[in-house]
Amino acid sequence: MNVDGKHFRTIWMNEADESIIEIIDQRHLPHEFVIEQLTTVDQVAVAIKDMHVRGAGLIGATAGYGMYVAVASLAPDSYISGDEIMRQMVTDGEKLKATRPTAVNLQWAVERQIAAMAAAGDDLSAKIAVAKQTAIDIADEDSDWCRRIGEHGVDIIEKISQVKNGETVNILTHCNAGWLAFVDYGSATAPMYAAHDKGIKIHVWVDETRPRNQGARLTAWELGQHGVPHTVIADNVGGHLMQHGQVDMVITGTDRTTYTGDVGNKIGTYLKALAANDNGVPFYTALPSSTFDWTMRDGVKEVPIEQRDATEVRMIQGLHDGEIKQVLLTPQDSPAANYAFDITPARLVTGLITERGVCDASEEGILGLYPEKK
Amino acid sequence: MNVDGKHFRTIWMNEADESIIEIIDQRHLPHEFVIEQLTTVDQVAVAIKDMHVRGAGLIGATAGYGMYVAVASLAPDSYISGDEIMRQMVTDGEKLKATRPTAVNLQWAVERQIAAMAAAGDDLSAKIAVAKQTAIDIADEDSDWCRRIGEHGVDIIEKISQVKNGETVNILTHCNAGWLAFVDYGSATAPMYAAHDKGIKIHVWVDETRPRNQGARLTAWELGQHGVPHTVIADNVGGHLMQHGQVDMVITGTDRTTYTGDVGNKIGTYLKALAANDNGVPFYTALPSSTFDWTMRDGVKEVPIEQRDATEVRMIQGLHDGEIKQVLLTPQDSPAANYAFDITPARLVTGLITERGVCDASEEGILGLYPEKK
Repeated sequence: MNVDGKHFRTIWMNEADESIIEIIDQRHLPHEFVIEQLTTVDQVAVAIKDMHVRGAGLIGATAGYGMYVAVASLAPDSYISGDEIMRQMVTDGEKLKATRPTAVNLQWAVERQIAAMAAAGDDLSAKIAVAKQTAIDIADEDSDWCRRIGEHGVDIIEKISQVKNGETVNILTHCNAGWLAFVDYGSATAPMYAAHDKGIKIHVWVDETRPRNQGARLTAWELGQHGVPHTVIADNVGGHLMQHGQVDMVITGTDRTTYTGDVGNKIGTYLKALAANDNGVPFYTALPSSTFDWTMRDGVKEVPIEQRDATEVRMIQGLHDGEIKQVLLTPQDSPAANYAFDITPARLVTGLITERGVCDASEEGILGLYPEKK
Repeated sequence: MNVDGKHFRTIWMNEADESIIEIIDQRHLPHEFVIEQLTTVDQVAVAIKDMHVRGAGLIGATAGYGMYVAVASLAPDSYISGDEIMRQMVTDGEKLKATRPTAVNLQWAVERQIAAMAAAGDDLSAKIAVAKQTAIDIADEDSDWCRRIGEHGVDIIEKISQVKNGETVNILTHCNAGWLAFVDYGSATAPMYAAHDKGIKIHVWVDETRPRNQGARLTAWELGQHGVPHTVIADNVGGHLMQHGQVDMVITGTDRTTYTGDVGNKIGTYLKALAANDNGVPFYTALPSSTFDWTMRDGVKEVPIEQRDATEVRMIQGLHDGEIKQVLLTPQDSPAANYAFDITPARLVTGLITERGVCDASEEGILGLYPEKK
């Protein structure tokens, strides 16, 4: 999507030197737009581990480019056999996989690269060429799936817009399921960008999403850069807005959705779904099908909920006099708890917006779109 | 309640010189415990206006002491007639009333003082004596009502404790309806302090309560100082905890409750009530009967919801290197909205805990306890 009027993805190859990978270092957002160059697999590992990049789709794409950087940075003049190259690739792949052990897309992208390079003949340049193409494919596929989520989701927004006679459609979102979490478009944001680009009048209520404030920091920034009207609100506000008819629909992303339609997403999503349900506001979750968990039946009982460091609740960072500073919010001695996700039961979800179309949040609905998973 | 092992109210007369009023300057909490001395009505007005003190009960008590300070600081040796004194008192009263125009308790305390002094004869010393006693009475009554809320509420906690065979009772609260908002005990916190002091094992989940963080700053501090086990959580977390049986009851305060039982309280309360309802967790609101609005029937339709400055959402203050600093959380250009309260419909409220006892959140229940309001 656009940054300051120019199109960007979250990761790309340097135009002049395609062995250099460039990313948006998201740690500095929204206060600074920093582009970082990555030329070694170690730099890529740090970028994933220290969250210069984050989000399932983007982590997968970064790992894909990371394996390309790994093979491209092998000295081309020293003789290396195909087996030696692959041994090095497995080592580098393990290094990448260790950075975020629970990120499924990361494992998957590394394995896909290793399989592609292993099948590419012994020549280093052949392996580099295959790895480069595979990295591009992974990123393009991610972008393409998100674009298609946008195409399916925009129909829902357009219908609401028609019912409102073209008046602004107010959409509430939680956390950042935006293009910054993928390669382009995002999941929850894809229908919003598609609607905005199509000239449908929308306005987005952006939950700040405590404790890590991905909404206030990232979603607000990317919507603003692309020119989408939006307003940041505290996570407490959505229910009040829905009671007063100021929300026409909710669209969230998800970190894991069961094949029965229970939506695991950033903590607080469940509360918004309850309010949407109580006020007759449609609640949608947008996801590429790679986010479905085809083994879990009961989200509340089965999905493990990560507990993160309490410091994320007790401290917050922001801009003070031009510098990013951390401040303490709580009494020194008060403990804090930091549950990262919650589960929104399928009964509260109006529909799922996937790259194949929109379906009910139910086993029947999901397997109807993905019959090969039966 | 206790601060560092010593009993405090939020406002009191200096022991050595009763013409000096002392308050806890709450702007410095939780990072510093600052006691401020007030000797003129202008100082009292600033303390209310700039929120050194806040909370309905405490604002009323401060206005009561403010009128005492006003009359006590009139020069005793210069001759002033009873009429002159009362003209000055009306002027000073208007000054106090203008500091927080919507605070009902403030108007009420000023009027009560003026009526008491007017009835006290022309002598300055007689008026001072009456104003002093009236200020003490207002504070004592506030404290006494909160203490009685505690006595009624503790029965509910004790029953849950018995059902759990003495295991810890987990109570969730939102915002600060603690003793810092009143003279002592608080409303929502009164049953918690009573339970704790009685040896019933409790633990309080403290919603941080964005955007002004009254939970993380004030409730966590006062519970900690009194020794009540507690954990600060982001406002997003309560639903998840309730889904997993980690909340036995919710107790909140209220800024205005209709005579039909709709609870106006800090923004986000409605979301917690929905989650409590969805998970069979009892949801109580504690209030002195002065907080009932005897004229409003439909909270969602009739209670005006204050919109505050967006800066409170965009910026936050905390401790950095020993100094209180403000940091910017959002992009410079992103707008924010700041709705201060929401309405929890009576159907989601299990009961109201008042100074007269516990009742249903319904017209019948409330008028049953307050038949004189029929």
